Amino acid sequence: MPALPPGSTIGILGGGQLGRMLAMAAARLGLRCHVYSDASGPAFDVAAETTIGAFEDLGHIRAFAERCDVVTYEFENVPLGAAAAAASMRPVRPGPRALEVAQDRLVEKQFVAGLGLPVAPFANVDTRADLDDALATLGTPAILKTCRLGYDGKGQARIADGADPAWALSAIGHRPAILEGLVAFEYEVSVLLVRALDGETRFYDIPENRHREGILATSTVPSRLPPVAAERARQIAARIAHALDYVGVLAVEMFYLGADAAEPILVNELAPRVHNSGHWTIDACTVSQFESHIRAVAGWPLGATGRHSDAVMENLIGHDADHWAALAAEPGTALHLYGKNEARPGRKMGHVTRVKASG
Amino acid sequence: MPALPPGSTIGILGGGQLGRMLAMAAARLGLRCHVYSDASGPAFDVAAETTIGAFEDLGHIRAFAERCDVVTYEFENVPLGAAAAAASMRPVRPGPRALEVAQDRLVEKQFVAGLGLPVAPFANVDTRADLDDALATLGTPAILKTCRLGYDGKGQARIADGADPAWALSAIGHRPAILEGLVAFEYEVSVLLVRALDGETRFYDIPENRHREGILATSTVPSRLPPVAAERARQIAARIAHALDYVGVLAVEMFYLGADAAEPILVNELAPRVHNSGHWTIDACTVSQFESHIRAVAGWPLGATGRHSDAVMENLIGHDADHWAALAAEPGTALHLYGKNEARPGRKMGHVTRVKASG
Repeated sequence: MPALPPGSTIGILGGGQLGRMLAMAAARLGLRCHVYSDASGPAFDVAAETTIGAFEDLGHIRAFAERCDVVTYEFENVPLGAAAAAASMRPVRPGPRALEVAQDRLVEKQFVAGLGLPVAPFANVDTRADLDDALATLGTPAILKTCRLGYDGKGQARIADGADPAWALSAIGHRPAILEGLVAFEYEVSVLLVRALDGETRFYDIPENRHREGILATSTVPSRLPPVAAERARQIAARIAHALDYVGVLAVEMFYLGADAAEPILVNELAPRVHNSGHWTIDACTVSQFESHIRAVAGWPLGATGRHSDAVMENLIGHDADHWAALAAEPGTALHLYGKNEARPGRKMGHVTRVKASG
Repeated sequence: MPALPPGSTIGILGGGQLGRMLAMAAARLGLRCHVYSDASGPAFDVAAETTIGAFEDLGHIRAFAERCDVVTYEFENVPLGAAAAAASMRPVRPGPRALEVAQDRLVEKQFVAGLGLPVAPFANVDTRADLDDALATLGTPAILKTCRLGYDGKGQARIADGADPAWALSAIGHRPAILEGLVAFEYEVSVLLVRALDGETRFYDIPENRHREGILATSTVPSRLPPVAAERARQIAARIAHALDYVGVLAVEMFYLGADAAEPILVNELAPRVHNSGHWTIDACTVSQFESHIRAVAGWPLGATGRHSDAVMENLIGHDADHWAALAAEPGTALHLYGKNEARPGRKMGHVTRVKASG
């Protein structure tokens, strides 16, 4: 398929802040966005067209897709049925395989491990007996994680040495889960790549990520990651993207275990979409992750992913955003607010990127 | 008045590409935009709310303004009656005086000259007799310019040595005009400043501008302007902004006559709005001219206006934009398209900014 010309319409499933930033990136390129979501959200204020409908209403999804030239999504929990309904009308990028893999931790781990790539040790846990077996194999401390619908630390329970495993099963609602062995990592990084229709793949600089209470707090470029480990991280991410025949921006969260580790990099988690750890690209790159994603799904040439500045992205969670006036006054700080009315605890309200000339 | 909090609504009179880029800058800050224009335009695709109405329909303008928290504009030919109607409901920034001055070349020249600031020699021309008098004083070559509604070289006629002045009057439709003596300048620059409600004023780096067929072709930073002349240019622009009690981004186009000239800088023209020669700030600054304007009119702290990169902005006029795919593939080039359907000659379809690490 040739590139979609300016004036074409990108359909976006999901109306959150990622959709908002995708829509703004598309508008920069003269592309229109049509956002479909089950409720009005941050993306609605900047989209040329919007539809409110259930993700289970496949007729509605098909009618939406028919009015677009290509469809993408901004969250990985788009029901597979919705993606398939859209795909019956228009190309959906990234494809359904990426959604299928990323929606289930067990499927994802098996997929990554099946490619011969390193992951933290894990075991499937459906029952108390499974959990006991898994603990016997993996030891404690370990983390029990629901297979589906967990994000920002939700649906997770840490099992400390000597803790009662029954509590953990109850904490995650007795849902299908995996137990993951706790890895002694030095820090977390994420590879952000963009892959075009023809397979060309480009990488952003790899940020180093810090979390607070299970939620991404900061992403910093450059990271401390040694060049050899960075190259290994990019190879791993490219292998995953290739295996998924991926189109668009893919984020692969990884643990760095240190230069002395037998395998210094482990894959933690995939996000088949633009990612919070790539928000700094808006202010430190000429072509942001959002524009890269739009270019890829529209069949456009990829842009240069180089970084003109060093950057530290900090999320504004809940009432952090109340300090908008002070943040706006900071020199060298780019402030981004998502237009959400209510600052609930744990809710991502915006972010700031502190930019410094790279040296 | 305190700063308008995130979630507030900025009303924008005018729906062109400047409104589009203002709306995207506002959205970044969590502010909503309501665009009012007499026809759908580039700003409509990225605005939270839109109204189509005549600028002469003052009831409609008042109803629009009432739904906003502050009102600004993206073109200087907003009828004064429309601005006054909006101002009867909500603050209008910049204020009506800036519009009044910028809408009429004669008023503008008299205003700038009245501040003791240097302008090219000019004379009022309403009749053939006025023109003969003016030519006798100013000589040829000279340029006859309509007082109102001229832009991008429209409403102008150059009178060469020995040419028939009657032709020039006819070319501009016998409208009220000024004759301007042709100034032997080395190049044109523009001062882009932002002034806050409290009078604080910040400047972007001064671009050097080149025109083709009366339309801005490129803006380059850094310019060749010597530091002393740049300081003089900033002082002149600040004096104008102060005299207008200006709020927002103001662009002052100036001629640089060379280091040997008695007065090296002459004021050419004011634009009481964000300006085409400031588009490079989107990609070479952390806070763009569009965000600066929004911050000022919303009463927010001004952002840092420093430049992290060198930049050359090039307008895409008419069919220039047909080359979007090749431009998108250029490394270091930020492509901006305005979502206009039809590429007419002379129509601004988009721009590119070629960015280089400053050194």
